[in-house]
Amino acid sequence: MTTKKLGSQTAALSNPPSIAGHANVVGKKEGEGPLSDSFDYIAPDDTFGESTWEKSESAMQKQALNLALNKAGQSASNLDWLFAGDLLNQCIGSSYAAREQSVPFFGLYGACSTMGEGLALASMTLDGGFGEWAGVVVSSHFCSAERQYRTPLEYGSQRPPTAQWTVTGAGAAVLAREGPGPYVTHVTVGKIVDKGIKDANNMGAAMTPAAASTLAAHFKDTGRSPSFYDLIVTGDLGSLGSELLLELLRQDGIQLSNHVDCGTLIFDAQEQDVHCGGSGCGCCAAVLTGYLLNGMRAGRWNNILFCPTGALHSPTASFQGESIPGICHAIAISTTKS
Amino acid sequence: MTTKKLGSQTAALSNPPSIAGHANVVGKKEGEGPLSDSFDYIAPDDTFGESTWEKSESAMQKQALNLALNKAGQSASNLDWLFAGDLLNQCIGSSYAAREQSVPFFGLYGACSTMGEGLALASMTLDGGFGEWAGVVVSSHFCSAERQYRTPLEYGSQRPPTAQWTVTGAGAAVLAREGPGPYVTHVTVGKIVDKGIKDANNMGAAMTPAAASTLAAHFKDTGRSPSFYDLIVTGDLGSLGSELLLELLRQDGIQLSNHVDCGTLIFDAQEQDVHCGGSGCGCCAAVLTGYLLNGMRAGRWNNILFCPTGALHSPTASFQGESIPGICHAIAISTTKS
Repeated sequence: MTTKKLGSQTAALSNPPSIAGHANVVGKKEGEGPLSDSFDYIAPDDTFGESTWEKSESAMQKQALNLALNKAGQSASNLDWLFAGDLLNQCIGSSYAAREQSVPFFGLYGACSTMGEGLALASMTLDGGFGEWAGVVVSSHFCSAERQYRTPLEYGSQRPPTAQWTVTGAGAAVLAREGPGPYVTHVTVGKIVDKGIKDANNMGAAMTPAAASTLAAHFKDTGRSPSFYDLIVTGDLGSLGSELLLELLRQDGIQLSNHVDCGTLIFDAQEQDVHCGGSGCGCCAAVLTGYLLNGMRAGRWNNILFCPTGALHSPTASFQGESIPGICHAIAISTTKS
Repeated sequence: MTTKKLGSQTAALSNPPSIAGHANVVGKKEGEGPLSDSFDYIAPDDTFGESTWEKSESAMQKQALNLALNKAGQSASNLDWLFAGDLLNQCIGSSYAAREQSVPFFGLYGACSTMGEGLALASMTLDGGFGEWAGVVVSSHFCSAERQYRTPLEYGSQRPPTAQWTVTGAGAAVLAREGPGPYVTHVTVGKIVDKGIKDANNMGAAMTPAAASTLAAHFKDTGRSPSFYDLIVTGDLGSLGSELLLELLRQDGIQLSNHVDCGTLIFDAQEQDVHCGGSGCGCCAAVLTGYLLNGMRAGRWNNILFCPTGALHSPTASFQGESIPGICHAIAISTTKS
């Protein structure tokens, strides 16, 4: 058997899995943004009927996965594997959502890159011959993230201009070994990159070197040029990180003319007062499972490179003076198998 | 291509990966226990030369992985993928260890079951045709765990008799697509099971139903009986959880006469005052990568079922009155490929 690995970081799926169903649920603020039409469910408030923000986040994951399963015409009991993650300590958003699903479960932690990590592992698992159906679901919630990472909302702390706004949202995808597409054709798995940025209010800058590294590896490993893709979508570098990315890649001899960022797509930064844009696992997951995949189904784009980024630090690491390690996974999605 | 999935939860590796190298590092107390001879490095103190316990934990992961790579005759740059996890918020033990490795990285969160989750995913990835080498490394540290989950050591809180003692240890395995074994032949991926236990000082009881569920699924999916294995090794139910497991399985018509638990193996519970035994990702990882795999290489055992268990809750979930969801993955390891 020949290896299905290209270069140092890329898995080429020999029988690309089909994204059979995808769905999202978001909070009120996200529903007021420019991508409003692409969300499956917009909550009237951000509690999702629960008594704590952490339970709200679990409720979002359950709802997003169920909607994606419905679109795929499957029930949870048909899933061979579920890959899930979130930003909370010990990933309780995911485990409390999944305890009612009765599906073999892989818990992931990739910070805001988790949707990419999950799609990579789900695709490799199905392509490897293990089962027929795999689910991926991730989430973030503005209020649980503020409480855990920054300061409780009640403190009323001001946010610096480089800050991003954690999206209240969950996105889910159901992958099938066979189907009409869109297909996951390649996954470039990120290495951890840390250039010494220590400002937890400037995550875009901290994650950008990882995005540049993974994109460069993807083009090298696959032999593709950036222009192969209709869209190259990072998530969530925000407006400042996006500028830095283009500059870093330019220094590396790579020109991107088709780049967008989920963090800048999901909010109207001026109107919605979110400074550099959205962030959180739920940001790029909601953009992918709505705006992007809906657009591919509608024939708007044929090839997308989806590149979620994550910051792999913690408040404890910051308190101890550590810098912020970043990671980015690149997932090539196409309307055809090749 | 026929599926390599057996029943509802088990992946059968068609070309079982070989465990080419395995190693561990542990703290002083673990080095004073009954498995002392099986550890690759016993620290003279638990700081591992670092200024914080979290940094000590990262240092342990780096050292364990390097030792396992050395035994496999490989360098980190030859690893196609690294799977890593720990118990800390945002899994910083792993990400700060891996930022210096320059290896495509998958962060996992499976609480104390993470070694099983990592071995499952690494095995499926290699068997699926993706690359030649995969690393798995996990850790726990008594002091970082106490600070995060319970109370800082300085408070001097008393521990109830049902409590377990978080092991200071890291274990690493390097898997190869081809090699002389021992081989990972089957992995049974756990579903989340929650029977309503809320006592975070009785984790054995909380995790036992998940262990019983996964073991029953493994025997059903593979058609094997418990007596196929020389040893069935859970980790880390401790002494109380182990008794409960045998009872639960007996009610299900399954008799285990060859069961041991990593939590009771690693310490002398009476002499070392650890109540129900050891726990933490590092407990079963250190026992597997030393005592168990060394024993297989020495011809003592030919077939082992390694079943690490995890409790997927958090302090926040407990404060909110939630019960403790458990998970258990079963990894069948054999000196032959079948």
